[in-house]
Amino acid sequence: MRTGVWLVGARGSVATTSIVGGLALRANLAGPTGCVTELPDLRGPALPAFADLVFGGHDVVTTPLCKRAEALASAGVIPGRLVAALPDELAAVEEELRPAPSGDTQADRAAAAVRDLAGFRDRHDLDRVVVVNVSATEPAARPHAAHSDPEALRAALSGPDEVLPASSLYAYAALEAGCPYVDFTPSTGARLPALHALAVERGLPYGGHDGKTGETLVKSVLAPMFAMRNLAVRSWSGVNLLGGGDGANLADPAANAAKVESKQRVLGETLGYVPQGDTRIDFVEDLGDFKTAWDLVTFAGFLGTRMRMEFTWHGCDSALAAPLVLDLARLTAAAHAAGRVGPLTELAFFFKDPLGAPTHSLAEQWALLTGFARALHAAAPGSADGHAA
Amino acid sequence: MRTGVWLVGARGSVATTSIVGGLALRANLAGPTGCVTELPDLRGPALPAFADLVFGGHDVVTTPLCKRAEALASAGVIPGRLVAALPDELAAVEEELRPAPSGDTQADRAAAAVRDLAGFRDRHDLDRVVVVNVSATEPAARPHAAHSDPEALRAALSGPDEVLPASSLYAYAALEAGCPYVDFTPSTGARLPALHALAVERGLPYGGHDGKTGETLVKSVLAPMFAMRNLAVRSWSGVNLLGGGDGANLADPAANAAKVESKQRVLGETLGYVPQGDTRIDFVEDLGDFKTAWDLVTFAGFLGTRMRMEFTWHGCDSALAAPLVLDLARLTAAAHAAGRVGPLTELAFFFKDPLGAPTHSLAEQWALLTGFARALHAAAPGSADGHAA
Amino acid sequence: MRTGVWLVGARGSVATTSIVGGLALRANLAGPTGCVTELPDLRGPALPAFADLVFGGHDVVTTPLCKRAEALASAGVIPGRLVAALPDELAAVEEELRPAPSGDTQADRAAAAVRDLAGFRDRHDLDRVVVVNVSATEPAARPHAAHSDPEALRAALSGPDEVLPASSLYAYAALEAGCPYVDFTPSTGARLPALHALAVERGLPYGGHDGKTGETLVKSVLAPMFAMRNLAVRSWSGVNLLGGGDGANLADPAANAAKVESKQRVLGETLGYVPQGDTRIDFVEDLGDFKTAWDLVTFAGFLGTRMRMEFTWHGCDSALAAPLVLDLARLTAAAHAAGRVGPLTELAFFFKDPLGAPTHSLAEQWALLTGFARALHAAAPGSADGHAA
Amino acid sequence: MRTGVWLVGARGSVATTSIVGGLALRANLAGPTGCVTELPDLRGPALPAFADLVFGGHDVVTTPLCKRAEALASAGVIPGRLVAALPDELAAVEEELRPAPSGDTQADRAAAAVRDLAGFRDRHDLDRVVVVNVSATEPAARPHAAHSDPEALRAALSGPDEVLPASSLYAYAALEAGCPYVDFTPSTGARLPALHALAVERGLPYGGHDGKTGETLVKSVLAPMFAMRNLAVRSWSGVNLLGGGDGANLADPAANAAKVESKQRVLGETLGYVPQGDTRIDFVEDLGDFKTAWDLVTFAGFLGTRMRMEFTWHGCDSALAAPLVLDLARLTAAAHAAGRVGPLTELAFFFKDPLGAPTHSLAEQWALLTGFARALHAAAPGSADGHAA
Repeated sequence: MRTGVWLVGARGSVATTSIVGGLALRANLAGPTGCVTELPDLRGPALPAFADLVFGGHDVVTTPLCKRAEALASAGVIPGRLVAALPDELAAVEEELRPAPSGDTQADRAAAAVRDLAGFRDRHDLDRVVVVNVSATEPAARPHAAHSDPEALRAALSGPDEVLPASSLYAYAALEAGCPYVDFTPSTGARLPALHALAVERGLPYGGHDGKTGETLVKSVLAPMFAMRNLAVRSWSGVNLLGGGDGANLADPAANAAKVESKQRVLGETLGYVPQGDTRIDFVEDLGDFKTAWDLVTFAGFLGTRMRMEFTWHGCDSALAAPLVLDLARLTAAAHAAGRVGPLTELAFFFKDPLGAPTHSLAEQWALLTGFARALHAAAPGSADGHAA
Repeated sequence: MRTGVWLVGARGSVATTSIVGGLALRANLAGPTGCVTELPDLRGPALPAFADLVFGGHDVVTTPLCKRAEALASAGVIPGRLVAALPDELAAVEEELRPAPSGDTQADRAAAAVRDLAGFRDRHDLDRVVVVNVSATEPAARPHAAHSDPEALRAALSGPDEVLPASSLYAYAALEAGCPYVDFTPSTGARLPALHALAVERGLPYGGHDGKTGETLVKSVLAPMFAMRNLAVRSWSGVNLLGGGDGANLADPAANAAKVESKQRVLGETLGYVPQGDTRIDFVEDLGDFKTAWDLVTFAGFLGTRMRMEFTWHGCDSALAAPLVLDLARLTAAAHAAGRVGPLTELAFFFKDPLGAPTHSLAEQWALLTGFARALHAAAPGSADGHAA
Repeated sequence: MRTGVWLVGARGSVATTSIVGGLALRANLAGPTGCVTELPDLRGPALPAFADLVFGGHDVVTTPLCKRAEALASAGVIPGRLVAALPDELAAVEEELRPAPSGDTQADRAAAAVRDLAGFRDRHDLDRVVVVNVSATEPAARPHAAHSDPEALRAALSGPDEVLPASSLYAYAALEAGCPYVDFTPSTGARLPALHALAVERGLPYGGHDGKTGETLVKSVLAPMFAMRNLAVRSWSGVNLLGGGDGANLADPAANAAKVESKQRVLGETLGYVPQGDTRIDFVEDLGDFKTAWDLVTFAGFLGTRMRMEFTWHGCDSALAAPLVLDLARLTAAAHAAGRVGPLTELAFFFKDPLGAPTHSLAEQWALLTGFARALHAAAPGSADGHAA
Repeated sequence: MRTGVWLVGARGSVATTSIVGGLALRANLAGPTGCVTELPDLRGPALPAFADLVFGGHDVVTTPLCKRAEALASAGVIPGRLVAALPDELAAVEEELRPAPSGDTQADRAAAAVRDLAGFRDRHDLDRVVVVNVSATEPAARPHAAHSDPEALRAALSGPDEVLPASSLYAYAALEAGCPYVDFTPSTGARLPALHALAVERGLPYGGHDGKTGETLVKSVLAPMFAMRNLAVRSWSGVNLLGGGDGANLADPAANAAKVESKQRVLGETLGYVPQGDTRIDFVEDLGDFKTAWDLVTFAGFLGTRMRMEFTWHGCDSALAAPLVLDLARLTAAAHAAGRVGPLTELAFFFKDPLGAPTHSLAEQWALLTGFARALHAAAPGSADGHAA
C-alpha cells in the first residue's frame, strides 16, 4: 500500500523531523520511539509500512531540506549521524518539494496545488496521498458566506476575495485531488461546512486539530485524575515559553489567541467547570526548538483543604510531533482504504482540539483509538478476518 | 443498610479526618469533595448512605478524639468550625473507641478484638461492620510456617510466638468476627494464604493495599501517558518530604522500604520496564500534615531526543485519604451485601499496591471500578434491576 | 522618641498587617521575625522602639480595621489569636483613621491631609510622623509642566486640573506638614522635581520605591550570583500569579506595566545586559493573599554549555511587606531626627526600584544599609558616641 | 610567568574540560565565560595569562585525553569543534600525563610524584607548578598519629601503613616538590596539621575545599537573603541527582556522607541555626554529565506566616567547575609569586567548605576575593604600584 505523505510546510521543523525520521525508519537506522502506531495495541496489517511512505510537500520558504536537517541536528533535535547517513534519500524528497502554489485567484492556486498532488501520486504510483498541514499557525479565519456550501465556495474562489485562509485552501485542494487531509495545527483547515460537504461528496476522511505534544498532553491526563478523584480544581494557570519559528509566530497576538483557546478547552470539557487561570505563550528565542511549560494547579480536597500541584515540561515539539505526523498519515491512509468518510473523531488522542470533541481524557481517547485500529486491522486484506484483496 | 466503619488507628490523622468528615456529611455541614462514590459514575442504591455510617475503632494511643480533631483544625487539615459544630457526635464516636486489645497470646488479643467488633455491631444494630486499617505502616512481616493455612495459624496464635504482624492480627479478628477487612496501609494485612483461605471460608471480601493519595496517584496517570505515546522513560526519581506521625514512622528504614517498594511498582508494571531512579521518603517535621513530593522524569522521544518533566505535589495526605476511607467502607459494605468473597481487585483505583494488581493505570482502574459499581447497583434491592429484598 | 506611622491605604492588607504586628510587638505577643531593624547589624539607639510607634492613616474604603484584621486571620495571613487579643488597641487605631481628604481642588485636598497629619501629631504629642504609602498601585503619571517646580506646583494645585497622581498629592501634603514620606508602591510618590525641591526646602528625607518582597528579592541575589560567576544569562522569564486586592488591581494593564518595568530593572542593571524574556503578572483570585511566582533562567557556562535554573516562590506579600513598613518607618524617623534631607538612597535594600538606584545587588544594598544604620546609631543621643541630648 | 597546572585526576571530566578550555582560550577559539578571573573586578597583571598555562597531571586510568574530550563533546559538555580544532595541543598535553605513581611504600610513591612534578617544571621551564586535585571524592580519612607533625609523617610514610589518603599524599608530594596545592574536592588533601606545617616550612600556599558549582552555590546566596530579611528558615531539604563518574562514586555511602556534610554546612553557618531537612545525593546514570538538584525551603515570616520556596538547578558540573580550576590555578600562582604562605582563606568564594571558613555568604566571599586580587595586582611587577621585577 504505497502511501504519499504530502506535508504543507514541508521545510519546517516538524516536517523535516518527520521526513528524516521516516527515512531513518525505512533504512532501519532508528527505532520507532514516539510512534504510537508501533505499539502492540495499534500496529497491524491495515497500516502502510514505514517503507511504503513517500514524502513530498509545499513550502513558502526555499531553504534546502538537507540544510534544514543539518540545522536541526545542530540544535539537538535530531542526531547528526542520521542526516549524514541519508543524503540521497533527502535529495530524493527535495525533488518532491514545491513552492507555495501561485495564481491570480484562490481557484488558480488551488488548481495548481491539485496538479502538484496529482503529479506526485502519478510519479510514484501511489495508492493514495495523505495531506498533512504542519505549517505555521494562522490567525482565526474571518467568516465568509461562501464557507457554508461547496458550490458557493467554488464560485467565490474564482473571484478576487481571499475567501479561505491558507490552511483551508490546502484542505480544499487536497479534497479536490481526492486526498484525505489532516490538520496538525490549530488553523481552520477542513473545519468549514463547505469543506465537510466536499469531503463527503468525494468520499474522503479528514482529521485534526492541533497536535497535542506538550503541556496539553499532560493536562489531558491530569485533569481526568482530578475529576476521577472528585477533587475541586480551583485554578489552573500555565505559561509556555518557546523559541523557534513557532514561538516567533505565536508571539503574534492573533495566532496566540487561537492556540491558547485550544489549550484551555481540555479543562472545561474534562472537569465540567472552568477553573480560574489562563494559559500564556511567550517567545524566548534562546530556547530554540525546545519549549518549557510551567503549570500551577490549586485544588480543594475533602472539607475544603487547599492543595497544589505544579509541573514543568521541557520538551522538543518537533521531536514529539514528528512521529505523530507519521502515525496520522498511516492511520488516515488506512481509514481511507477502508472507505471511511468525513471527520475521523477516533483520532482525538492526537489533538488538543479534536474534531467532534468526543472526549478530552487521554485514556478515553486511547480506548477510541485502539478500537478504531482494531476495526481497521480486522477489515484489512492482510488480516485473518479481512476481506480477500 | 446500617454500616459500621471500624478504624484500626482510630485516633490517627486519617481516621480522625474520616470521622469528622463522615459526621459533617451526615449533618449536611460539608459536601463530598474528594469522595469518589458521590460521582455520577459511581453513586447508586447499593451503597450505604453517609447517614447510615457508624464509626468506632481501636487505637494504642488515648488522646481524646476531639483533641485530635482540634489539633487537625489548628494544622489546617479540617475547618475548625466543623469540629466546633459536632461536639456531641464526636463524643458519641469517642464512646466507641477501644484501646488496642490485650491478652497473653495473639489468640487472646484476637478474641478480645472479635468481642469489640461484635459488641459494636450489636449495640448499634448494624447490618455489617467494615474494618479499615489506617494505622502506622509496619515493617515487612517475617515469614512464618503458620501463614499458609488457617488451622495452622489458629494453633500457632495460641502459642507464645508473635506469629502475625498487628495488621494481620486485626485482619484475622475481623474475618473471625464476620467483618470485611480493608487495608489502607502497605502493611501485610490480609495478604497471607491463611487469611485468604479464612475469608473464603467465612464468605467475606477484603481489599487493599496502601491508599494512593499523592505522588503515586500522579504517577498512575503520567506513566500510562508516556506508555501510550511510546516515549522511552529513562529515569524517574522522586523524593517525598513529609511531617506528621506518618513521616516520623516512615523515617524508620524498615517501614520506609515497604512504602518505597510499593511506590515504585506502578512504573515497572505500567511501562513494561523499570527506568533508572529511586523514590525517597524523608521526614521534615515542619511540613506537619502536608507532604511535598518532587519527581523528575527524563525521557527520550523520536530519534532519541532527550526531554524531561518534573512535578511538585503539595498535598495533605489526611484530606486526600479520608474521603477514600469512606468510599472504601461504602463499596466494601455493598460488595459484602452482594455476596462477594475474597480479594476485591476492582478497588485497585484506590491503591498503590492493589490486590491482584490487575493494572496500575488509573484510567483502567477507573473502568474496573465503575463497572464494579454498576454491577452492584444493578443487583441492589433498591435498584430497578435489583432482586427483591 | 514618639513616632507616628501614617499609612496611606490604612485599611489595606499590608497596612492592617503592619498595624496588627506593630501592636502585637508592643504588647510582646509576637516576635520580630521579618523585621530587619531587629537584626544585630541594624538595631540600636537611633531607632524608635516598637512601643513608641503610633498608627494612623487615610483610606478610601471604610471597612472597620478589626473586620479587615479578622479577614486576614481567616485567610491565614495573621494569627487569629492576635486579632482577638488586641481589640482595644485596634479600636484606638481605628480612631486615627480618616477617609481620603476631600475638597474642590487638589490644593484643598492637600490642605485637608495636612490638617489630618498635624492633628494626629498634636493629639499624640509625637516627635514626628512618617507617612508611608501602601495604597494600590497607580498607573504611570502623566507629565505636567508644574511637576518641575514647587511654586508652579502650588499654583497649579489650586486650579481645576488633576495635576498630581494621588501618591504624589499625599507626598506633597506630607512634606507640607513637615513629615518624611516613604513610598512602598511603584507609584510616582515623591519622584517629581517639584517634590524633591520641596523636601529640600523643608529639610525632610524621603524614600522609595516599590517594596521588594518576593520574586524580585530572589532576583536581587541570583542575578549577582550569575554575574559574580561570569555566567552568561541568556533568558530570564517570570510569571507572578496573585490574588487579593493587589492582584485585581494589577490585572489593570496600566498598573501592571508600571510594576513589570520595576521588576525587570534589576536584571539589566546587575548583569550589564538585558537577557531575553519577560515578567508577567496574572490575577488568580483563588490564591488570595498569597502569590506564586515562577522564574526560568537559562544560562551559558564555559565553552557555551547550556544550563538552566527555575524557582517557585510561594509567599504572602502582606506578611513580607508589613515588617518592612515598620522598618522603613523606624529608619526614616531616625534619619529625620539625624537631619537627613532628600532621597534616602541607603534604603535601596527594601525596594525594587530604589531612589538613586545605587545598586540592585542585595548584598551591596545590605552593606549600604548597615553602614547607614551604624552612622545613625553613632550619632544618636543614647549612643556612647552620640551627642548629648 | 609560565605556570604549570598539574591536575590530579587529569583524565576526568573536570580536568579534561579545563584542559580543552584552557587550550581553546590560548588559541582564541573560545571566550572566558565562567572564568571569574576575567571579570573587571579580578583581572590584572598579577595573574598568569591563559597563554602561559601549561597542563600536565596524574591519573589512574589510561584512556587517551582526546578520547575523553570526544566523549565529553558527544555528551554536550564541550563543543565538538573545539576538540577537532586542537589535536596537536591535546597530544602535547597527553605527553605530560602520568599514571598514578607506584612504589612499595607511600614514601616511594610520593617521591615518584615529586619526580614527575620536577620533571614537568624543568621540561617546560616553568616559574611554578600549581597542583589541583580534581580526582574522585574519597571517603573521610582515618585519623593517624603521624598526621600531626611533618617529621612523624615522613617517618610513617616509609613504613608499611597507608598513612595518608591519596589526596593528602598528593598534597604532601606537591609541597615536597615546592608546588602550591589546591583541593577542588571534599577529600582531606592538605587539611592535616602535618601538611599545614610542611607548607609553612616550605613557604607555600594551599587552597580548598570542594568546588562550589551548583546547589551549594545557590544556597550561598539564598541563605544570606533569608538571614538579611530576618526570615526564619524552618526546613531546607535538597536532592541532587547526578550521573557521570562523580555520581557513581558518590553512590558509595562513605563518599556521599563527606559530600553531604560539606553541602549542609553553609546553612548552619549562615543562618546561625540549623533548619530541619537533609541533602541527598542519588546516582541517575541517564543524567550523564549533568546534574539536577531540587531544594525545598519552608520559612516563617512576620507573625509566623508560613511560606515556601523551591528551586531546580540543572547544571553541568564539569562546565561549571573547569573555569574555576583555571581561576584557582591563576590566583594560587599569583599568591605564590607574591610570597603568600599557608591556607588561602580569601578563595572561599570558590568552595563549599572553605579553609578557615571565613564566611559562607557568596557576597562576603566576593568582597574577600576582590580585595585579595586587588592586593596581588597592586604588588605585581607589571603594576603601576608594583615593585620592580
